[in-house]
Amino acid sequence: MLNFDFHSPTRLIFGRDTERQIGSLLKPHAKRVLLHYGGGSIKRIGLYDAVVSSLKEFGIDFIELGGVVPNPRLSLVHDGIALCRRENVDLILTVGGGSVIDSGKAIAMGVYYDGDVWDIFGRRLKIDRALPVAAILTIPAAGSESSDSCVITNEELHLKYGYGSQLLRPLLSVMNPEIFFSLPGNQLANGVADMMSHIFERYFTNTPNTDLTDSLCEGALRTIMKNAPILTREPENYDAWAEVCFSGTVAHNNLLGLGRVQDWACHGMEHELSAIYDVAHGAGLAVLTPFWMEYVYRENINMFVQFAVNVMGVAGSLRDQEGIVREGISRLREFYGKMGLPATLGELGIDDKNIELMAKKATGTAFGEERPIGHFKKLSWQDVLEIYKLSL
Amino acid sequence: MLNFDFHSPTRLIFGRDTERQIGSLLKPHAKRVLLHYGGGSIKRIGLYDAVVSSLKEFGIDFIELGGVVPNPRLSLVHDGIALCRRENVDLILTVGGGSVIDSGKAIAMGVYYDGDVWDIFGRRLKIDRALPVAAILTIPAAGSESSDSCVITNEELHLKYGYGSQLLRPLLSVMNPEIFFSLPGNQLANGVADMMSHIFERYFTNTPNTDLTDSLCEGALRTIMKNAPILTREPENYDAWAEVCFSGTVAHNNLLGLGRVQDWACHGMEHELSAIYDVAHGAGLAVLTPFWMEYVYRENINMFVQFAVNVMGVAGSLRDQEGIVREGISRLREFYGKMGLPATLGELGIDDKNIELMAKKATGTAFGEERPIGHFKKLSWQDVLEIYKLSL
Repeated sequence: MLNFDFHSPTRLIFGRDTERQIGSLLKPHAKRVLLHYGGGSIKRIGLYDAVVSSLKEFGIDFIELGGVVPNPRLSLVHDGIALCRRENVDLILTVGGGSVIDSGKAIAMGVYYDGDVWDIFGRRLKIDRALPVAAILTIPAAGSESSDSCVITNEELHLKYGYGSQLLRPLLSVMNPEIFFSLPGNQLANGVADMMSHIFERYFTNTPNTDLTDSLCEGALRTIMKNAPILTREPENYDAWAEVCFSGTVAHNNLLGLGRVQDWACHGMEHELSAIYDVAHGAGLAVLTPFWMEYVYRENINMFVQFAVNVMGVAGSLRDQEGIVREGISRLREFYGKMGLPATLGELGIDDKNIELMAKKATGTAFGEERPIGHFKKLSWQDVLEIYKLSL
Repeated sequence: MLNFDFHSPTRLIFGRDTERQIGSLLKPHAKRVLLHYGGGSIKRIGLYDAVVSSLKEFGIDFIELGGVVPNPRLSLVHDGIALCRRENVDLILTVGGGSVIDSGKAIAMGVYYDGDVWDIFGRRLKIDRALPVAAILTIPAAGSESSDSCVITNEELHLKYGYGSQLLRPLLSVMNPEIFFSLPGNQLANGVADMMSHIFERYFTNTPNTDLTDSLCEGALRTIMKNAPILTREPENYDAWAEVCFSGTVAHNNLLGLGRVQDWACHGMEHELSAIYDVAHGAGLAVLTPFWMEYVYRENINMFVQFAVNVMGVAGSLRDQEGIVREGISRLREFYGKMGLPATLGELGIDDKNIELMAKKATGTAFGEERPIGHFKKLSWQDVLEIYKLSL
């Protein structure tokens, strides 16, 4: 186990009707908030009214900025920063999924930065201040409600960059599984693929002696894979949503990745897809992950045997390691298929036109850097290209 | 899954040499600290010098209060409160195991309370202020380094009471597994029994649909039970200590108990033992837990089948539920035995003289209240007496 320094101070308020507490929860922390959200769905399901009514009840002023889209855009972040400065906002209340929370986080750190907030992403500048962010989650997926990171798309440059800082951990996050009842099936599926990937990126490691976090990762993955299929049949099953949502939150606050070298190659490869093609992040991950597994498992086959047995439930002789691992990966593909997720880039409408460019962008080669991605196996741009080709 | 509100803001600094960071870690939070510890062991292993040197390097003043004993006493807490007030201490740095941290927490809340701090324990008063507490852990066991609670013994009244408040969560906790290398075997064993009990108290529940926390509990228990026996043979095995210690911390910050009704009968019964007999908390728990299991498992046998299969690795036909459960409990007893823990109260030098009194104290009956303990099965004083009798 490696040394670690872990600080996850986000307060999690979980369960039925919890969104109605938002006014009292924010009262000690804010006088004037930016209410940040996406499209009309929060109004359709009555969430907007519940939030506004609770804010008013506790005398919290608010101004609004809607319009966040999936793969949230820099231009709206710029608008939000200007608005927060002009209106003296002291907290950003995000009501939405990962895109909305990420957009709110980018605004929160941009408010205190004199230049273009994109510099912070592009040049990995260290921030020392940010507005507090609170979240009411509407899509369990990205884990941004508990993570220290955000991902923003620069739509002019076709770049999608992530950034992390302790200052971006939300002050508090409210999760009511009932809010997810009306989510379309593809958002469930994409969300599940995203949260599973957050665990896979931490799980697959060459660091020895990581028993506790191994078992926490495996438990969370099994929990998701047991409960998510229930939701394809019963979209209003509270308990199944609760398990999926709670798992997605735990998946990304980094408890499950402590003391181990993490991978993150699949996220790197997927960001290039969605920067150019605007595909759903989870769908891209569902395609790439099994191909990545097939490409890398021989680096440390015991890790993948453990995955196949402890997560995918493959039983039988452990002497045929290759067979065990292939069966494990095959079962993961079956699971994604059952959730309605795509298995190839072709199904996402992506052909080989940009794959060399994407491989070179993912590894920095396109910008004159040589920055292999991944740690379980370090991937050069040629490796990444190979995985894209296999995924076509 | 039940609604929950979880806030675990303690920063965890884990790994080799981390105790040397204490000065820089505390610098932003404190000018003058109370250095609180137990006996001479922290001086013998050089930890005291390392801590003092780091505090001096960062210009942090300190005064000292040693002498904490297992089942930490109210009288020393009183001394600490007076000292902190007189010396204008702004943070309590505890260097020790659970007893030292608990003693520090009691001082931290007593400083701001006008009456006797024991009132807070006895009358369950709500506190609204406490000094911050930091910890350098020397015995992985009690989980106080991440919990919101503390337990203090009123040695005059032979009462041992716990108290919990968010304000008692440590600001930060430093854990270096190398510090545990010189621990005597019985402290390892007692610590392991204590941390396993913290998980059992949360795990055994009648709340349905708790998949994620079930699996987190099971993973932590398996991790402890795999690694602790290694330490009986190799007391300087860093990685085994790291797994045990990290598990003990996760065991008690309450992540593993979220969304489920918890039990806590074994802790209640054990507190009566150690209030009168001053036995080690872990040893008392190791005796009582299997007898408690045998007394209660028929309330919800499926929960215990799950325990036997998922934690204790019992395999075979699941149709013989009683047989599966008995084998699981028997394996737990074997594990405790392998760790050198006692199996009966007799081995702790406890006979039947006080068991009726203890049963009545545990359930409030001795004080004219009728307060059954436990939730998996509610235990009256007669039930508790029966379990004590079985344990003799």
